[in-house]
Amino acid sequence: MFEAKLIQASLLKKILEPIKDLVESANFDCSPSGISLQAMDSAHVTLINLLLRTDGFETYNCERSLSLGLSINALSKALKCAGNDDTLTMKARDEPDTLSLYFESPKNDRVCDFEIKLLDLGNDQYTIRDTEYAAVIKMPSSELQRICRDLSTLGEVVTICANKEGVKFSTSGDVGSFNITVRPTTDSSAKSEDSITIESKEPITLNFSLKFLTHFTKATPLSPTVKIKMTDSAPVVVEYNIEDLGYLSFFLAPKLE
Amino acid sequence: MFEAKLIQASLLKKILEPIKDLVESANFDCSPSGISLQAMDSAHVTLINLLLRTDGFETYNCERSLSLGLSINALSKALKCAGNDDTLTMKARDEPDTLSLYFESPKNDRVCDFEIKLLDLGNDQYTIRDTEYAAVIKMPSSELQRICRDLSTLGEVVTICANKEGVKFSTSGDVGSFNITVRPTTDSSAKSEDSITIESKEPITLNFSLKFLTHFTKATPLSPTVKIKMTDSAPVVVEYNIEDLGYLSFFLAPKLE
Amino acid sequence: MFEAKLIQASLLKKILEPIKDLVESANFDCSPSGISLQAMDSAHVTLINLLLRTDGFETYNCERSLSLGLSINALSKALKCAGNDDTLTMKARDEPDTLSLYFESPKNDRVCDFEIKLLDLGNDQYTIRDTEYAAVIKMPSSELQRICRDLSTLGEVVTICANKEGVKFSTSGDVGSFNITVRPTTDSSAKSEDSITIESKEPITLNFSLKFLTHFTKATPLSPTVKIKMTDSAPVVVEYNIEDLGYLSFFLAPKLE
Repeated sequence: MFEAKLIQASLLKKILEPIKDLVESANFDCSPSGISLQAMDSAHVTLINLLLRTDGFETYNCERSLSLGLSINALSKALKCAGNDDTLTMKARDEPDTLSLYFESPKNDRVCDFEIKLLDLGNDQYTIRDTEYAAVIKMPSSELQRICRDLSTLGEVVTICANKEGVKFSTSGDVGSFNITVRPTTDSSAKSEDSITIESKEPITLNFSLKFLTHFTKATPLSPTVKIKMTDSAPVVVEYNIEDLGYLSFFLAPKLE
Repeated sequence: MFEAKLIQASLLKKILEPIKDLVESANFDCSPSGISLQAMDSAHVTLINLLLRTDGFETYNCERSLSLGLSINALSKALKCAGNDDTLTMKARDEPDTLSLYFESPKNDRVCDFEIKLLDLGNDQYTIRDTEYAAVIKMPSSELQRICRDLSTLGEVVTICANKEGVKFSTSGDVGSFNITVRPTTDSSAKSEDSITIESKEPITLNFSLKFLTHFTKATPLSPTVKIKMTDSAPVVVEYNIEDLGYLSFFLAPKLE
Repeated sequence: MFEAKLIQASLLKKILEPIKDLVESANFDCSPSGISLQAMDSAHVTLINLLLRTDGFETYNCERSLSLGLSINALSKALKCAGNDDTLTMKARDEPDTLSLYFESPKNDRVCDFEIKLLDLGNDQYTIRDTEYAAVIKMPSSELQRICRDLSTLGEVVTICANKEGVKFSTSGDVGSFNITVRPTTDSSAKSEDSITIESKEPITLNFSLKFLTHFTKATPLSPTVKIKMTDSAPVVVEYNIEDLGYLSFFLAPKLE
C-alpha cells in the first residue's frame, strides 16, 4: 500500500503547472525513499526530472515500490478543486487500478475525494549523467520568467552568453534585435533570494528555443530562485528547488546555429 | 403609470446576471404589490421565478397592473452603464411602448437615461405548487458555486445525496470520479451566513445537469446563502434570498439515471 | 547624432497605446526643439498629432533634424520589456538605419538594449489650422472613457450636444436609445482634475464615430483630464496634455446625419 500526505495540496498544483503542457501522461515512481518522475515531451526535446523526498511529506508510507501511470491533465483537473489551505492525501493499493486523492479543508467541514484511473504507460528509463558545468547561474526565478517573456515578444531563439561579468540573453527578429544583460549582485546586504551569482569556469555561449525556456518558467511559483547550468557538451539544466522536498528540473538541448 | 426607484441600480444588474444566459426575453409583471417574473429557458428545462416586493423599493407607484415585455439582453446592456452607487428609476406609461431607465450618480453630476423598446411576448403562465421537501439544505452561496465549478471540470451530471449527516455532491467522467462532502455546522458560534444546515425528513438522492446548476450560481452575488430544496416528486429548487425585496429561485427537473 | 533620455520609459508606452491600433508606422520627426509625429489612420478618418518638447526630457541632444520611420508595433513590443521604473534612452546616428533603445532599471542591475530597424516612409505633411471653437469641454479623462464604453454597448454613432448648461452624449440602437448628460462643476472646492468646465460660444451638436472616439480614450492613462474642442466647420479635437512634455491630440471629422 502507498499513502502520502502533503500539508499543502497547492504544492502539487504548482509542480504540475509547468509539466502539464509538456507531457500528457507520466509514471510517478513511488519508492520507500520518495516519489520521482522522469518524462520527455512529445517532441523529445526536453526532459523533466522531478524528485520529492519522503522528509517533506507529513506522513509517507510505501513498503513496496510502485509506478503510478497518470494522465497529467486528469491530475491537474483534480488539483484545481483543492483549496489553498487544503491538505492532500494520496492513496493506492498494491497493484492498483486507481489513485485516490483526498483534499481536506483546515476546519474539516469539506472533504473531497477524487479517484483517478491509472494508465499503463510502459517504463521508459532516462539516464542523467553528472556533468561539470562551464557556468552555473543562480538568479531570482521571477527575473528569468520576465526575461523569457520579454524576449518572446521579438524572437524564437535565445542566445545565452555567460562569463564572470554577467549573463547576456539575446534574441532577434524581423523588427530588430534585443539584448538583456544581468550582472552578479555586488551588494552583500542583498537577500540571497534577490541576488544573482555566476560561477563561471570559462565563458560560454549557447542557443536555446525560447518557447521551451518560457515553458519552464511556469515553475516560478515553486521557488524564489532558479539555477541555470550550462556547458558545451550537454543540455542546459534549469533547476527549481522545492523547499524540504526536492527539486524540479528541466533539461534542454542547445540549438545549433 | 408605473414608477419604481431602487437605491442601488447594481442590484438589478446582479439579478439579471444569472437570468440573461437562460432566457432571451421575459415579461416583468408589475402590480401594486411588486414586480414578478416567471420564465423558462429555451430548452424548457428550468423555470426562473423572481419576486421583488414593493417594500424594498425607495419609491413604488403602480396603480394598474401592467406587463413589461423586455429583452433581457437590452436591459442588461443598459444596466452595464450604471455606476456602482447609482440609483435606478424605472418609468412606463399606461399601455407603454417603452420602458425608461434613469441612472443618477450620488452627486447628481451625471445623469443617464435609457429608453428600451418593449416586446409583445404573449402571456405564458406557470403554476408553482407548494411542496413538502425531503431535504432543505442551507449553505453559503459561494460554497455551492465552488462545488459546481469544481465538479464541472470533470463531469456533466451531479448526483446530490442528502441526509442528516451531510450532503455529498458527486460526478464522474473519463478520467475518474469525484465526491465533495459538506457537513452541517456544529460550531454554534459560527455566523449564520457561513453555516450549513440540513433539514432532512428522509435520505434522498437525485441527479441534475451540472451545466444548469452552475448557471444558477451566477446569482451568488445576490445573497450570502442559498437554499437547495429537494424531494422525489418535484424539481429541485435553488433559492437566493434578495434582502428586503424578495427572492430569485430556479426550478430544475432531476435527470433520470 | 540624436540622443534623448526619458526618466520614465513607461510614458512612451502610454503614448503608443492609443496610436498603435490606428497606424502601422509613422515618422518621429526629431529636431532641436523636440519630437513630433503626425499620422493618419489607414482609413484616413483621424489625424494623430503628438508633440514632445525638449524640456520634458532628462537629456536631449539633436543638432540636425532627422526623421525616424518606425513600425509602431515594433516600438510597442520593445517598450513592453521596459520595467515600470526603467529609464529610456533613444539613440540614432546621423542618416541612421536603426534606432537604439536602452532601458535601465533604477538599481542598474539589469540593462536592456533594443535595436529597431528604421523604415523609409516618405514624408506626408499635414497642416493643422488654428480654429475658434464653438465649445471647449474639459472633463476628467476617465469620465470620457466611461461614457464612450457605455454608449458603445448600444450604438455606433455618438451625438455630442454642448451648451453652457451641459454636454449630452447620445446614441441609439436596435433595442432603444441612450443619453448621458454631464454638467459643469459648480462646487468651487472640487479639484481641477475632477471638475468639468464648458466654454461655450454657441450651442453645437455634432455626430461622431463611437469606434474612433473610444480608441482615443486609450490615452486616458496619459492625463487626468481631456479637452474636447468642437466647432461646425472643422474636425473635433480630443486633446490629452502630457505633463512637462507636450500633448497628444486626435482630430476626427464629424459624421453627416
